Amino acid sequence: MYIEKINSPADIKALNTEQLNTLATEIRLGLMNRLSKRGGHFGPNFGFVEATIALHYIFDSPKDKFVFDVSHQCYTHKMLTGRKEAFFSDEHFSDISGYTNPEESEHDFFNVGHTSTSVSLACGLAKGRDLKGETGNVIAIIGDGSLSGGEALEGLDFASELESNFIILVNDNDMSIAENHGGLYKNLKALRDSKGKCECNLFKAMGLDYFYVDKGNDIEELISAFRKVKDIDHPTVVHINTIKGKGYEPAETHKEEWHWHMPFDPETGNDFYTGGGENYGDMTCDFLMKKMKTDKKVVAITAAVPTNIGFNEDKRKAAGKQFVDVGIAEEHAVAMASGIAKAGGKPVFATHSSFFQRTYDQISQDLCINNNPATLLVNTASVYGMHDITHLGIYDIPMMSNIPNLVYLAPTNCEEYFAMLDWSIEQDMYPVAIRIPCNGVIHSDKPVDTDYSILNKYKTTQQGTEIAIIALGDFYQIGEELAELISKKTGKIPTLINPRYITGIDMELLEHLKSSHSTVVTLEDGILNGGFGEKITRFYGTSEMKVYNYGLKKEFIDRYAVEDVLRDNHLTSEQIYSDIF
Amino acid sequence: MYIEKINSPADIKALNTEQLNTLATEIRLGLMNRLSKRGGHFGPNFGFVEATIALHYIFDSPKDKFVFDVSHQCYTHKMLTGRKEAFFSDEHFSDISGYTNPEESEHDFFNVGHTSTSVSLACGLAKGRDLKGETGNVIAIIGDGSLSGGEALEGLDFASELESNFIILVNDNDMSIAENHGGLYKNLKALRDSKGKCECNLFKAMGLDYFYVDKGNDIEELISAFRKVKDIDHPTVVHINTIKGKGYEPAETHKEEWHWHMPFDPETGNDFYTGGGENYGDMTCDFLMKKMKTDKKVVAITAAVPTNIGFNEDKRKAAGKQFVDVGIAEEHAVAMASGIAKAGGKPVFATHSSFFQRTYDQISQDLCINNNPATLLVNTASVYGMHDITHLGIYDIPMMSNIPNLVYLAPTNCEEYFAMLDWSIEQDMYPVAIRIPCNGVIHSDKPVDTDYSILNKYKTTQQGTEIAIIALGDFYQIGEELAELISKKTGKIPTLINPRYITGIDMELLEHLKSSHSTVVTLEDGILNGGFGEKITRFYGTSEMKVYNYGLKKEFIDRYAVEDVLRDNHLTSEQIYSDIF
Repeated sequence: MYIEKINSPADIKALNTEQLNTLATEIRLGLMNRLSKRGGHFGPNFGFVEATIALHYIFDSPKDKFVFDVSHQCYTHKMLTGRKEAFFSDEHFSDISGYTNPEESEHDFFNVGHTSTSVSLACGLAKGRDLKGETGNVIAIIGDGSLSGGEALEGLDFASELESNFIILVNDNDMSIAENHGGLYKNLKALRDSKGKCECNLFKAMGLDYFYVDKGNDIEELISAFRKVKDIDHPTVVHINTIKGKGYEPAETHKEEWHWHMPFDPETGNDFYTGGGENYGDMTCDFLMKKMKTDKKVVAITAAVPTNIGFNEDKRKAAGKQFVDVGIAEEHAVAMASGIAKAGGKPVFATHSSFFQRTYDQISQDLCINNNPATLLVNTASVYGMHDITHLGIYDIPMMSNIPNLVYLAPTNCEEYFAMLDWSIEQDMYPVAIRIPCNGVIHSDKPVDTDYSILNKYKTTQQGTEIAIIALGDFYQIGEELAELISKKTGKIPTLINPRYITGIDMELLEHLKSSHSTVVTLEDGILNGGFGEKITRFYGTSEMKVYNYGLKKEFIDRYAVEDVLRDNHLTSEQIYSDIF
Repeated sequence: MYIEKINSPADIKALNTEQLNTLATEIRLGLMNRLSKRGGHFGPNFGFVEATIALHYIFDSPKDKFVFDVSHQCYTHKMLTGRKEAFFSDEHFSDISGYTNPEESEHDFFNVGHTSTSVSLACGLAKGRDLKGETGNVIAIIGDGSLSGGEALEGLDFASELESNFIILVNDNDMSIAENHGGLYKNLKALRDSKGKCECNLFKAMGLDYFYVDKGNDIEELISAFRKVKDIDHPTVVHINTIKGKGYEPAETHKEEWHWHMPFDPETGNDFYTGGGENYGDMTCDFLMKKMKTDKKVVAITAAVPTNIGFNEDKRKAAGKQFVDVGIAEEHAVAMASGIAKAGGKPVFATHSSFFQRTYDQISQDLCINNNPATLLVNTASVYGMHDITHLGIYDIPMMSNIPNLVYLAPTNCEEYFAMLDWSIEQDMYPVAIRIPCNGVIHSDKPVDTDYSILNKYKTTQQGTEIAIIALGDFYQIGEELAELISKKTGKIPTLINPRYITGIDMELLEHLKSSHSTVVTLEDGILNGGFGEKITRFYGTSEMKVYNYGLKKEFIDRYAVEDVLRDNHLTSEQIYSDIF
């Protein structure tokens, strides 16, 4: 196997075209080994094998610098830069992350996991190079799906100002995570159809030079194109036409399902684990579809991750005009939701907590200053959510809950979640965000309130004395455990409170607690800094009440085990008990 | 005067072209009356008089809906929709805001002040209309300068998916606030030069239909174009070529100075008040220019508001490659700064606190996860800053200070600010943000530390007992006043502390305070929710310490008097004294 001898990019430069093609086949074996057993980004990596080989063949990394967008297509790059064991040796799977990572290799420049950042980051490397009077190529590698993101478009627009070497490799596989959305994709199609010759050209309209490669999975054609642009003295785009999932029939055929894939049997393509039982994605979709049928004003909006709330291809079709995927364009999604609500529609925009970070200004300016009654569903907003450093869901409470006018709700179980969602869609007074529960679908047979319009009314679920536990959202269950533990160990009943509202405090209830309680414990599923508990503590700042705040430390964490993080943050009920007694 | 008879848009539909032209002249008299006496956005409004008249002549507001981008060009619209007194009668100047405002009129749909939002907001109105099965035109009005913003580009890209009536009026005056930056402006020039006929067309590349109006200040030509697109059944751009500042020679000649202008003498164009004395804009520019001369790696970055840190046209030229204005593209600016720092450059990106809201995700993902040593200068981050609801600088502490890895500094005087800036540029360990002081240039002859690399070390500036005042940044002076008042009234010396670091607490110092203090008072120039003081209170949550947090309520405020806001938030030293004694 050639791959055995590749320990750095220099080692592939000696291979001829035939050998490079064999190398591509070997690389796919490595990809298949890791992906079938561990899961990961399938389509993006299978489609980008040849291009990565050709890049490393022509350019000289790390002097020439590759910046991968999202970096979910960097597996071949990792294999060619000294990290092949992480693909061929199962015991080394955990050596690497699923994204570029400067801590792993001098060939990686940024920790990246969000889309649409590569052009701007790479512009920075190029500008830094020019300031220092250095040389070398800087190459941003961006997929067609990422092009619809505002940051990418800002970067594309700015790039021509560099007036020095800068290469933007557009890896066009005619897919985002799901299908693309946006007018620019018509232009990409026209460019592909005309073999890059179409006069109307988005990239040229952005002031950039342009090259087209029709066979983006043909190493020879790629090498020839890259040779042309190497050491170019001005910014240019190289637009390559690739096949997502190339080399594995199920992935080529079912591109959306194989963008990211769970472990599977390579022979059949069947998943090893077929998840069963309830999940909030499908349940949210069913709820919204039912709403839509009786109310034409309801519209679900997603931003390139439609299955986040269960909208698979069939459901998207069934919803028709009442479903909108905007592509990777979260800023647009929030602003448009505000406009829809202003016009009397009932928009529900859902995405990951981590992706809402793109929309701070739109939530504040477009939505909340205007106080339009749109609904935002914040998914995987939890320590139980995604575990990669770039996809954490533990920062949205400080980010969103301090924006005026927003009503941010934290349901503690399934029935409460759907009651809140129903209320939010039907009311016309507030912009509302809801944290979709992330600790499993927990049912409750207790009665659920249906009207949340009187803001910041906490719900006392167990009346006790001395100690009051205010347990927010997904950490309500830890609060329950703690309450039980206290009862068991001390014989005294603590008060347990479901605050429900993240964005305000129930001053009347908190004031009342003073008369019969000496200690308050707050629990929240996110970092403590700027979060929920601190507001409770501020309320009691000049009183005799002792307040313990439990949540996570302000830090970036990566590929963690939930139980470790909970223990490190003193978040087990036993730990909390031992702190307060 | 025709304007006297115009009480609603219906009233202009009876006028003929000659009369409409006379109306335009009258409108400019009204604009001149208000702007010369009160100041405001000059160039954008003088250039958009004819287009606004033609819009209201052809379309039927409010059934047809105009959404203005930034909305700093909406003055003529206000005059034609029942608000002309605010221009012709000095005593009515305060009746209106400088932006569209739904509270003023049914012809305004959004409170808008940030750029690049109109297309997405208007998409929402159009989608809402379609969901409800209604009719009517929706028209987004966007300047060329705003087109470089990610949100606008996302909106432009998405718009073609609407498949129903949607009109994007691109008001191209070949200027942003300063000159435009970005490759797309070459395409706008090519379109203007070819009278819209150039094959390569950004808007068509975004999937949109396209019309061009060469004489964008000619009412007849505009009417003819708008007539063509009225009730169009698909999304289209109407690109009009206008003259910024049209009708007033100084504004046509010096477009940047007349984008927004202070009160002036209409005869000469000279300012009534010529500000004197020191200001942080010019001082920051001088400081950076000096740095640049000795270090080629230093680069100043702005995003369309270069004079924010003193970079007027001359300074920009003098700085050469070491100054970069990215246009309205804050996301790109932060990501590029991260890349420059990664490459060993020393980037300093400055913009308004309110505009940093666009960059939450870039600060978190592109910059802080990667821990690159870029410097962010946060301007007008203060209750003393800008007073319009869309431009408030009182939210950045909760927004930015809870992002891991960021070091956010709050200087209390001029010497400290420049010491922090110098340290930040020279260090290579942390991403650093600095709040530029906003309460005047206050000098101190006390020694200033030059090394801030040991994080979160607060500085005790007066050692006392019983009461400790922790006074952050611009509110340090309130802390000083309070300390004096306490000494005067009680004869006891309180401790006064300059915390300097917004992003962390000095646990050693706070712990030490417990031994000789019973009360801590925190002061911060921003909203309390998620802010600095709450972290101090959390530290003392389970102790005997009484903690008072002073800052602003979480709310949107508009066109306020600083003294009112301070008093309403109990922020005078007398009020605080009476609270704690």
